[in-house]
Amino acid sequence: MKLTPDKKILIVGLGLLGGSYARSLTRQGYTVKCITRSQSTVDYALSEKMVEYATTKPDPALIGEADLIIIALYPNVFIKWIEEYGKYIKKGAFVTDVTGVKSCIVYRIQSMLPDGVEFIASHPMAGREVSGAQNSDDKIFKGANYIVTPTDKNTADGIDLCRSLGEILGFARISELSPEEHDEMIAFVSQLTHCIAVSLMNANADQKLCDYTGDSFRDLTRIARINEDMWSELFLLNKKALLHEIDAFETQLSRMRGYIEHGDAEGLKEMMRTSTERRSWFDKK
Amino acid sequence: MKLTPDKKILIVGLGLLGGSYARSLTRQGYTVKCITRSQSTVDYALSEKMVEYATTKPDPALIGEADLIIIALYPNVFIKWIEEYGKYIKKGAFVTDVTGVKSCIVYRIQSMLPDGVEFIASHPMAGREVSGAQNSDDKIFKGANYIVTPTDKNTADGIDLCRSLGEILGFARISELSPEEHDEMIAFVSQLTHCIAVSLMNANADQKLCDYTGDSFRDLTRIARINEDMWSELFLLNKKALLHEIDAFETQLSRMRGYIEHGDAEGLKEMMRTSTERRSWFDKK
Repeated sequence: MKLTPDKKILIVGLGLLGGSYARSLTRQGYTVKCITRSQSTVDYALSEKMVEYATTKPDPALIGEADLIIIALYPNVFIKWIEEYGKYIKKGAFVTDVTGVKSCIVYRIQSMLPDGVEFIASHPMAGREVSGAQNSDDKIFKGANYIVTPTDKNTADGIDLCRSLGEILGFARISELSPEEHDEMIAFVSQLTHCIAVSLMNANADQKLCDYTGDSFRDLTRIARINEDMWSELFLLNKKALLHEIDAFETQLSRMRGYIEHGDAEGLKEMMRTSTERRSWFDKK
Repeated sequence: MKLTPDKKILIVGLGLLGGSYARSLTRQGYTVKCITRSQSTVDYALSEKMVEYATTKPDPALIGEADLIIIALYPNVFIKWIEEYGKYIKKGAFVTDVTGVKSCIVYRIQSMLPDGVEFIASHPMAGREVSGAQNSDDKIFKGANYIVTPTDKNTADGIDLCRSLGEILGFARISELSPEEHDEMIAFVSQLTHCIAVSLMNANADQKLCDYTGDSFRDLTRIARINEDMWSELFLLNKKALLHEIDAFETQLSRMRGYIEHGDAEGLKEMMRTSTERRSWFDKK
């Protein structure tokens, strides 16, 4: 299936990501409808002309007419939604998502959907420290990564459709990983960094410190302002990979602590040379 | 002493900070001379008109004519420089610095200087991930903190002079802390964050990860590109306070690890609510 403007797109869950998808696709001439939880979001989306149609009701006809369904719900709500409404999705339709963890979701959703409906998972690595459709903004995709995580149940057609969605949305880099590779990667580059920022803010209750802070502290803790419902769910759904990365980090921090305690300047310098070299890999190209 | 443009200012050590001080003061009409280690920096500073006069030689006459000497050397080199050349500083002159640790430096330098020479310490909390006069830029002071750390050996006149230097350089907030308060604060908001960023980069050697990273990882690890000579010295000179902060952070990270391992969503959410609330204290005013 080619994602041409005549295709009917349904977004389920108009939060920060769902809303940003809607803004981008509508602006580019696609017909986007949505189902979302609260009436105030429905009203907001219509007044902002983010979508052609919005409702709080999971109407079977609305679900059944869609060629592409984008599910932008928290992982556990996503599974419940498919359990309840997956049966209304028409044969030949494609389903994708925005979920930040994959192994625990992808195989399960694929096994739940009716025959002839293809679920091709993807993870748009973009976000903000605020949530909700009111804060949605399709500029967040600029320069960001979009990762497609196919399984052997996916077709070349499904993968192509998902990649072209990422292109239309304006992501800078589109790549493919297995669900397992995705989860290991995300445990390190995203979940561990959030664990660190949250732990750091919990380590000191002295409000006066903000009078003396510099940009390095502000940058490191930006993500400590966190949506606790979403992130606690994501952490627990990726437990194994995340615990592994926390342990690897703690090993290095303990190593550094030992060098400081024993006055080992050479040990410290070696770690700093390694970090300086590796950090250069991550500079924006 | 009022810092009027007729006063003779000598900067010792023309690196990133010394160079940025020189640019700002010269631009504002002050007469700045400098002593720095390498001839190439002397040539660069003169060609850029950052200073009126520059030399690699610690000429007693040059040191002896200065009304205000700004020492912008690494801590251990600073102490050696005062040991060797402190005797040439004239009575009535003021000395200040840019050192990132205080307790271990301030009392020692004050006890080493000749009678009638006042050392009033300060810490300009500004920097870049690159070093050297060639990268100096006085815009780094904009929005930044400048901390004066007086002891009971300092006079009201010395403190005023140091504060007015911070104002002239364009710092956003100028405050006073004791050397001990300064070191505890800096251990948390600056040194611990650098330890974390360095440890994180040491925890994973997979270069491919940079293809999938987002801005949160980039922001958190920006400071992992680090000057190993300077920072290893700063860490070891502030050992006690830094070890205390590392331990407090590790306690919180272990707490979070436990919640993840045992599937305790409520525990995770509580930590996230705390971090969200505390992080808001640090938003730029």
